[in-house]
Amino acid sequence: MTSVAASSKPRPAQVPDALIVRLKEIVGPGNWIDDPAQMGAYTTAWRDHWEARTPLVVRPGSTQEVAAIVAACAAENVPVVPQSGNTGLTGGGLPRDTGAEILLTTERMRKVRDLDLLNDTITVEAGVVLADIQKAASEANRLFPLSLGAEGSCRIGGNLSTNAGGVQVLRYGNARALVLGLEVVLPDGRVWNGLRGLRKDNTGYDLKQLFIGAEGTLGIITAAVLRLYPKPTERQVAVAAVTDPAASVRLLGLLREEAGEQVTTFELLQRSCYDNALATLDGAEDPLDAVYPWYVLTELNGQGAPGSLRAPLEAALARAFEAGLVQDAVIAASEQQANRLWRVREEQADVQKRTGTGIKHDVSVPLSRIAEFIERADAVLTKAYPGIRLCAFGHVGDGNIHYNPIGPAEMGTAFAGETETVNRIVHDIVADLDGSISAEHGIGRLRLAENEHYKSEVEQDLMRAVKQALDPLNLMNPGKLISERDG
Amino acid sequence: MTSVAASSKPRPAQVPDALIVRLKEIVGPGNWIDDPAQMGAYTTAWRDHWEARTPLVVRPGSTQEVAAIVAACAAENVPVVPQSGNTGLTGGGLPRDTGAEILLTTERMRKVRDLDLLNDTITVEAGVVLADIQKAASEANRLFPLSLGAEGSCRIGGNLSTNAGGVQVLRYGNARALVLGLEVVLPDGRVWNGLRGLRKDNTGYDLKQLFIGAEGTLGIITAAVLRLYPKPTERQVAVAAVTDPAASVRLLGLLREEAGEQVTTFELLQRSCYDNALATLDGAEDPLDAVYPWYVLTELNGQGAPGSLRAPLEAALARAFEAGLVQDAVIAASEQQANRLWRVREEQADVQKRTGTGIKHDVSVPLSRIAEFIERADAVLTKAYPGIRLCAFGHVGDGNIHYNPIGPAEMGTAFAGETETVNRIVHDIVADLDGSISAEHGIGRLRLAENEHYKSEVEQDLMRAVKQALDPLNLMNPGKLISERDG
Repeated sequence: MTSVAASSKPRPAQVPDALIVRLKEIVGPGNWIDDPAQMGAYTTAWRDHWEARTPLVVRPGSTQEVAAIVAACAAENVPVVPQSGNTGLTGGGLPRDTGAEILLTTERMRKVRDLDLLNDTITVEAGVVLADIQKAASEANRLFPLSLGAEGSCRIGGNLSTNAGGVQVLRYGNARALVLGLEVVLPDGRVWNGLRGLRKDNTGYDLKQLFIGAEGTLGIITAAVLRLYPKPTERQVAVAAVTDPAASVRLLGLLREEAGEQVTTFELLQRSCYDNALATLDGAEDPLDAVYPWYVLTELNGQGAPGSLRAPLEAALARAFEAGLVQDAVIAASEQQANRLWRVREEQADVQKRTGTGIKHDVSVPLSRIAEFIERADAVLTKAYPGIRLCAFGHVGDGNIHYNPIGPAEMGTAFAGETETVNRIVHDIVADLDGSISAEHGIGRLRLAENEHYKSEVEQDLMRAVKQALDPLNLMNPGKLISERDG
Repeated sequence: MTSVAASSKPRPAQVPDALIVRLKEIVGPGNWIDDPAQMGAYTTAWRDHWEARTPLVVRPGSTQEVAAIVAACAAENVPVVPQSGNTGLTGGGLPRDTGAEILLTTERMRKVRDLDLLNDTITVEAGVVLADIQKAASEANRLFPLSLGAEGSCRIGGNLSTNAGGVQVLRYGNARALVLGLEVVLPDGRVWNGLRGLRKDNTGYDLKQLFIGAEGTLGIITAAVLRLYPKPTERQVAVAAVTDPAASVRLLGLLREEAGEQVTTFELLQRSCYDNALATLDGAEDPLDAVYPWYVLTELNGQGAPGSLRAPLEAALARAFEAGLVQDAVIAASEQQANRLWRVREEQADVQKRTGTGIKHDVSVPLSRIAEFIERADAVLTKAYPGIRLCAFGHVGDGNIHYNPIGPAEMGTAFAGETETVNRIVHDIVADLDGSISAEHGIGRLRLAENEHYKSEVEQDLMRAVKQALDPLNLMNPGKLISERDG
């Protein structure tokens, strides 16, 4: 991995014209953009604003083209920023404002290379849209379980590079757990063919794990072998009112005792999630007759006959009633009702945006400490910002809370100015509870300084050692995930 | 990670006396062995013979002692070989015959540090015996699903360092999938505290993945946070006669359609496995009234009422009969019968040893290519060694076959002399089918040359780059997993 370092030139302040010509040749006419006015879809994030600038967007159509681009950039010591569906929440897929980085999008690489039903695997290129993989699996009577809000536009290369989470992690794991093999273009332009469809392979370090969740800082994922699962034939959806977050965790335990891993989704919603939806979302419905402080939305999926999971769901809810954990609950009687119960959860990001200026956190703690996290954070913030509108929801079954307080109405957008202070309050508590300040969204640019504030020196040393070993010139997505210490 | 390299001394041909004195001080009286006559339990493997020699076995009782030992050895550039239960099959936990390596056993580190039932996790030290973790989980009404033949004596540090497999991987994954966090003593003696009990944590490279399956070559795992699962309340066990290995894979598909991930175990056995057992194992039973060429042993586990998984099991078998995949089958009517059906599979390693001289392979291929693998390997070996006694069995649900031909009776132990030739025949076919030459046993010393024969140059470069980054002095278990290129 040192061949590149040996032949390195100093990093140029601007991308050399000759390299731009060469890169255009590699991808061919129509597959590059050098006019900043035409680059908006690639240099603008959908949620947050980042200063992003590049002299060239390249749209390679094959692994060989990606490899040629990276090799050409490596020879000139020019960084490459890989981008997938540009749906990330941390600025990880955007070039910085120097204008000295090439943006490489995998959006043209959307072949399904193989569908192996006996092996329950699908082999896809990095640019395939997540929903298209779900669809290909479904048409083959299989399930590809990765499921998240952006699934209609995010692409699998980005999902893997950020180790995406979503609403079915409880049962099927994060994106990482769904990968059997990878193809990766390395920082020196070589291709690592790790596209194996094996469930067991103990012949060395599990290299694919390095690239999953690395946010493109160690290489560019160009294809993957993904696991498929049996397609569930039975679905039960319920909303239950619980006394508090601690009760929700105990309810999860009862549900898993009754239905095991068939408990696929288990989401917590604070009452404010419903209030905000009722105020800002057309057709939003209150799920229960009375108002309660906390709600759980759960879905059970299985292979049995329709209705077969209703009994274990009812049994768990009955036990939870008896134990005083649950006050009321509704089980969807139809697909339509199930979808209606899901709606307030699904629309929650937009609902919050319409409600006011919020400060978002994507944190995780052990499930046993969720209640303490919410209690402590609520108490400190309520004291610091009287009138703050607390709003917690998310994947409590994974210990992952989207803790998104909205500022007091009278503060308006000025609340955004409190971001650093609020982050420190929330993340200090998370750190104290052995949690994570980024459960599923990653680090990118957004959480870079925050992450290095909390991560141990030993762990940062290990990360830097790995980065240095694989990408000694810091060519791959520099300044993301790991800060640049000397410029 | 370069602090050690900077202060390095040349590697000594023998362990310096002063270091031995220092190491004895660190662990204290009774916790070291320097008499070769007393070291047999640590320097002798239970299956294969390896020339293993060390001047000192140290038995630290804490992470701090492990760290002090490694730091002291690093300062003198003396290698450390970590050992766990000494049940490995590749010589990975044994020092080499130079006598210049310290053997560190984690056997005294057997604390269960924490059991968090709300988080469904158990935190254990590296020396806890696997069966003791299973027992602690069971007593708390949970399941720790890692299960394999050596579970009564193997220790979790070794299970994680070899990414152990076993008979429940189909449902729960390899050891890797069961780890949420690790504590590791690094090659410079520092401790990485990655003991997090989080299901989602996207704050950087997933460092724990590097140490899992690394066979102690990157550091010493001293503790782990492991996932627990709901304890199944229902169990169904069946043996089915299938026409051939291809039919077994199709039967698995039907079972998963009917019962999903509740299909916990799915093992293939060639008829010879039963013949050899009937000839050499007291009380071994033929499971069916007639003799068939291939058998499947399957177990379904779930949370429902006793008997609730019988219907999906019968449904899948009925569909398999209709499709001509299955000729006969028996479903255990009692726990005793279930255990009897399991017995021939469980005793298979000993049965083969008593039957004759075999050459063992632990390979995996995509499930869609299992039939082709067995057909091709059988054909070539039968031609090369007339009278060879073919014997394939194993975790077909994971694509993992223990392909263990026994030599022609008239060859006797001389068949062992054919090991290299037979390995090349079998592994060439595996490589051609995009498989793995070591599915679950690892590389250690046994498969070192073989692995480097088949692994791509790019992949070997990546592995060496990681090794160099984390262990620049090659102090940790040198010559295992990755060969030493310059001595």
